[in-house]
Amino acid sequence: MTALTLHPDRLFPVDPAARDLARSIHAGTRDSPIISPHGHVSARMLADDEPFINPTQLLITPDHYVTRLLHASGVELRQLLGDDVDPRAAWRLFCDHWGRFLGTPVRLWLEHELSSVFGVREQPSAANADDLYDDLCARLRLPEFRPRALLDQFGIAVLATTDDPADDLAAHRTLNEAGYSVLPTMRADAYTDPSLPGWQEALGRLGRSSGVDCGSYAGLLAALQARREYFRAQGATAIDCGHVDAWATPLSESEAQRLHADGLDGVISVAGATAYRRNMLYQFAAMSAEDGLVIQLHPGVLRNHHDPTRRRFGPDTGHDLPLATSFTQPLRQVLNDFGTAAQFRIVLFTVDETAFSREIAPLAGFYPTVFAGAPWWFLDAPAAILRHRAAVTETIGFYKTSGFIDDTRGLCSIPARHDMSRRLDAHYLAELVVSHQLTEDDAHLIAGDLVSLIPRSTFRLP
Amino acid sequence: MTALTLHPDRLFPVDPAARDLARSIHAGTRDSPIISPHGHVSARMLADDEPFINPTQLLITPDHYVTRLLHASGVELRQLLGDDVDPRAAWRLFCDHWGRFLGTPVRLWLEHELSSVFGVREQPSAANADDLYDDLCARLRLPEFRPRALLDQFGIAVLATTDDPADDLAAHRTLNEAGYSVLPTMRADAYTDPSLPGWQEALGRLGRSSGVDCGSYAGLLAALQARREYFRAQGATAIDCGHVDAWATPLSESEAQRLHADGLDGVISVAGATAYRRNMLYQFAAMSAEDGLVIQLHPGVLRNHHDPTRRRFGPDTGHDLPLATSFTQPLRQVLNDFGTAAQFRIVLFTVDETAFSREIAPLAGFYPTVFAGAPWWFLDAPAAILRHRAAVTETIGFYKTSGFIDDTRGLCSIPARHDMSRRLDAHYLAELVVSHQLTEDDAHLIAGDLVSLIPRSTFRLP
Amino acid sequence: MTALTLHPDRLFPVDPAARDLARSIHAGTRDSPIISPHGHVSARMLADDEPFINPTQLLITPDHYVTRLLHASGVELRQLLGDDVDPRAAWRLFCDHWGRFLGTPVRLWLEHELSSVFGVREQPSAANADDLYDDLCARLRLPEFRPRALLDQFGIAVLATTDDPADDLAAHRTLNEAGYSVLPTMRADAYTDPSLPGWQEALGRLGRSSGVDCGSYAGLLAALQARREYFRAQGATAIDCGHVDAWATPLSESEAQRLHADGLDGVISVAGATAYRRNMLYQFAAMSAEDGLVIQLHPGVLRNHHDPTRRRFGPDTGHDLPLATSFTQPLRQVLNDFGTAAQFRIVLFTVDETAFSREIAPLAGFYPTVFAGAPWWFLDAPAAILRHRAAVTETIGFYKTSGFIDDTRGLCSIPARHDMSRRLDAHYLAELVVSHQLTEDDAHLIAGDLVSLIPRSTFRLP
Repeated sequence: MTALTLHPDRLFPVDPAARDLARSIHAGTRDSPIISPHGHVSARMLADDEPFINPTQLLITPDHYVTRLLHASGVELRQLLGDDVDPRAAWRLFCDHWGRFLGTPVRLWLEHELSSVFGVREQPSAANADDLYDDLCARLRLPEFRPRALLDQFGIAVLATTDDPADDLAAHRTLNEAGYSVLPTMRADAYTDPSLPGWQEALGRLGRSSGVDCGSYAGLLAALQARREYFRAQGATAIDCGHVDAWATPLSESEAQRLHADGLDGVISVAGATAYRRNMLYQFAAMSAEDGLVIQLHPGVLRNHHDPTRRRFGPDTGHDLPLATSFTQPLRQVLNDFGTAAQFRIVLFTVDETAFSREIAPLAGFYPTVFAGAPWWFLDAPAAILRHRAAVTETIGFYKTSGFIDDTRGLCSIPARHDMSRRLDAHYLAELVVSHQLTEDDAHLIAGDLVSLIPRSTFRLP
Repeated sequence: MTALTLHPDRLFPVDPAARDLARSIHAGTRDSPIISPHGHVSARMLADDEPFINPTQLLITPDHYVTRLLHASGVELRQLLGDDVDPRAAWRLFCDHWGRFLGTPVRLWLEHELSSVFGVREQPSAANADDLYDDLCARLRLPEFRPRALLDQFGIAVLATTDDPADDLAAHRTLNEAGYSVLPTMRADAYTDPSLPGWQEALGRLGRSSGVDCGSYAGLLAALQARREYFRAQGATAIDCGHVDAWATPLSESEAQRLHADGLDGVISVAGATAYRRNMLYQFAAMSAEDGLVIQLHPGVLRNHHDPTRRRFGPDTGHDLPLATSFTQPLRQVLNDFGTAAQFRIVLFTVDETAFSREIAPLAGFYPTVFAGAPWWFLDAPAAILRHRAAVTETIGFYKTSGFIDDTRGLCSIPARHDMSRRLDAHYLAELVVSHQLTEDDAHLIAGDLVSLIPRSTFRLP
Repeated sequence: MTALTLHPDRLFPVDPAARDLARSIHAGTRDSPIISPHGHVSARMLADDEPFINPTQLLITPDHYVTRLLHASGVELRQLLGDDVDPRAAWRLFCDHWGRFLGTPVRLWLEHELSSVFGVREQPSAANADDLYDDLCARLRLPEFRPRALLDQFGIAVLATTDDPADDLAAHRTLNEAGYSVLPTMRADAYTDPSLPGWQEALGRLGRSSGVDCGSYAGLLAALQARREYFRAQGATAIDCGHVDAWATPLSESEAQRLHADGLDGVISVAGATAYRRNMLYQFAAMSAEDGLVIQLHPGVLRNHHDPTRRRFGPDTGHDLPLATSFTQPLRQVLNDFGTAAQFRIVLFTVDETAFSREIAPLAGFYPTVFAGAPWWFLDAPAAILRHRAAVTETIGFYKTSGFIDDTRGLCSIPARHDMSRRLDAHYLAELVVSHQLTEDDAHLIAGDLVSLIPRSTFRLP
């Protein structure tokens, strides 16, 4: 067996002076409460607080970071996903392929989870897969591994979820009544593209939820407006938008209504659907300029690249893929209209890291309403996180960035991801200090702000 | 109070061996005269040599690097710009927001200026803002802080300005007669796009200055040609082009004349204006192939992104924003026609750093007439400067780069910016030496050439 | 004179702990046999095994890495290329400009070749150019410097060449009979674009070679299919595609036939030629899904940028230039149809490094059939190689990358290039170990796999 241990200096600089300083900076934030302003943990799962059954259900099935690399390595998705998967067999495959994760953050997160949360002391392998499975199943039955107990243990002070506008938010209410600060975030992507399968069903669902008929464009806007108010009343401070590009261009009401009708008739063109979607992002911005819900913009991902996989296993199964993404021109109209408005705010994320220094930081360096989001998804990884800081800090410093976003579906990965981010911030700050670009006092101050003041103020959290 | 000191090892590598070597390399260039082949300091200001009145007028108002980040941090531009600004109040805002500049080169430049030029010994803060203001005002009244005295003190051997083709260059003449090598650089952007407001006025101004009527396309070309000769006679060695893209595509004379007439009639289309502009860049290249004026090409910036700010405060107020930029295809025609011509020369700048390794270095690595410009604007910052060297050197070495360009509007930032560049070149060279990619002798030689031979020869300076 | 020596720690990290570890990792792969799955060394030259005549013919003329930078530095190509070049004079120019290569990998490779292969002990210079020329000419007459002796000396276990589909592969047969594993690779670019000069001649050549008339589209496909079988029988495991973009979009047979006829009639449009080319890439993919030949895709290069140079000196003379390149959308159709097919495999290369983290690694991180190619051409250089590892590893680890590809025309540069790559992999792995992201045991294992298991399995080598 190979020991599984977490080195206390992991992810710090190699130079001894910088490493010592990083250690000291990190000591100041290591135990700070976790603020998670964007992610995909299920509020329903937390509200129900049912025990997890096995490690496959907890660590593999919901995590497309894990399943996609297994699939890329030759494992078939039907061995990992779907109702007839044998969880023990899936776990064995995962342990067999443990070496494939070397060099990736997924490996580091999983090591952190297995070690810190479950006390595992050896690396998974083909040899120990069954023992590990049995051991983890046994632990998961204990009360301290129930979802809410984990939330407590992890020190999560604020957790934002991602929710359909039609969601009744009952789970959030349950949690809030139990003292948890679990905030809903509205994600209305499904309502913005009339050419998507499911758009009509979504309109029906939203109509029922809001009490406003969505058969017309004006109705859809009114319904979404009503749901924003409902979400805000339940504690929401943000909406999330995952459109394929960042363009936000208004249409006249009559033109939008014409496209809405085309969508209902199933005759909308690709160009029409694109125009409709881009208008919706503009309308969401206009609403945010009124109600102050922060826009989390996550553009530039082509969803469901492999259609056979989508048809068999559904969305979010590992083949959403990045595109070259721009912001300067796409957001010009929105920022001309709302870029200096008091209530408006938009946080820009990307999986095209060329935009960090070229567009996101320059935009956030002029507009008081624009913030640079943390490195997202494929870029939420040690080297990429350091590249992100190096790319944006020289244009905007630290106080126009968002603070860390974990964006995870895996509850147990939350502390692992925040720990990685805090270590890398300490790493980056220490290197600025030892090259005499920052004082040690300033580095400590900034590190603290990055995990508390900055995410709280950027996302207008309570 | 917090002390303001400049560490002698700032910006050097952290590794002790590399740091010692960087220190030694830097010692060889630290006191070399400054050559500044492109910038925006006003020749008129230098010619008039009037004392500066207060630090706001010197350090804040003209510097959109400073005002943009203050604006991004919540300060309104009307508190910083315009005739009715209270300079002391603006200075207080600047001091209040001093922490916002942490991690940016603006902070490092300002620390250098305050410390080296003005002898300030404490970091600006809300507490000392007024004392600092009074102290700086008092110093600025002394003769050694007049513009020309600063030019002397900074050791500026050559300073190129950026000037309208219609400028009479009287200020340059005055300065040259007083022994200063202040060279004009023609920037004719305002004449290249018939759809811009002000194009007709510009034609009139140029007609008066050149004595050639610009009512026709042929007249405009002849007038610009005449002004190039005038600029050359006054010492110019370069022209500057800040077009939104790098395309340079010739039109027939009749087609260009048709668009020129459309422009005068106010009926030119967007496509027509684009074609006209791209033809003008081609014509400038053709002229350079004849007269040898080096083209400084600065493409890929969308000027005046926020129209309300432009309308109220004018251009150059912090919302010029980068775009994805390409060079390989846009410059193909020009380089097929002039790429190996003896007199032709073009230096390529970008704010899209993806072009460094992908297009700029590969072009400069084949064409004898193409040079890779220094990192520009948002990229004139420590980490970005190191990324630039790492991106271009492996394709073109050091002798097809431009040498450092400060591109500044702030006179006092010139030595700070050149010092930063020299330190980072020493840093980069030292790391090549300690990884045994370069000998120490070669590193010293290259460092010296980068601040003297290379900019002088690239820009054909006297 | 300046000594020419190779430091044993070159290209390792500067930090002492990381350097020691890199040295130890490199010791494990330094002497491993070289596997070269893609390159441009001539099989005919190896089969003929004639001695090289002079160092110009060996090191300068065939190597556009060398000639392009000399040209960029002011040397005219007619002094380097063409039948009437004086090889001694060309060698003198090369030695005169030796300093221009400082900071580039070409300099490091040439130092390695001169030192390790030819025992040269001083840096080339104007002063020693003639002596060096004479000395190298004398050595090249010795039997140990004949092509096959060099192949033996270099420890090249597998060498893949790049060959026209019409090639009879007689040279490969000769070599294989002599015990050399020199594998052909089919490159059919010349057959894919009916608008290229030479397309009709190529069809004729292929018709004669295959015995299938290529006057129709169906005939061309059948002829290429026949040649694939011929190449496979001669040991080929891959095809190479160097199209200007990565789009692969099928046409109906009738539409393709119509464009084929337009090509023969010389009336094909630009759009038609593009559609024809993109269909051909799709057809190649379909064939690979049947016969298992791995596709090496090298898109995004605009060939022959400078038409006057192409007309005078032919292709591959240093002015092929990179373009911004995308993969996610261009390959969607191919990957929907073949992305999980058992026999299909595609390795993605780029000279636009933005695609590494944005598209290539994400695609290779889902599709079992997609692999991330090594850094190519302008990016086959120390800093770029480290950037490549940093960009792709966090998404796909090590086992979905291709292993090193030298892609060289210079036989003597093969060991130099592989040595550089192995040093940099040791460098990268050592830094992961000292920052506690990888164990030392894992680093050793991965380093070994990167030079053997990984290239062998990725390219299905024997």
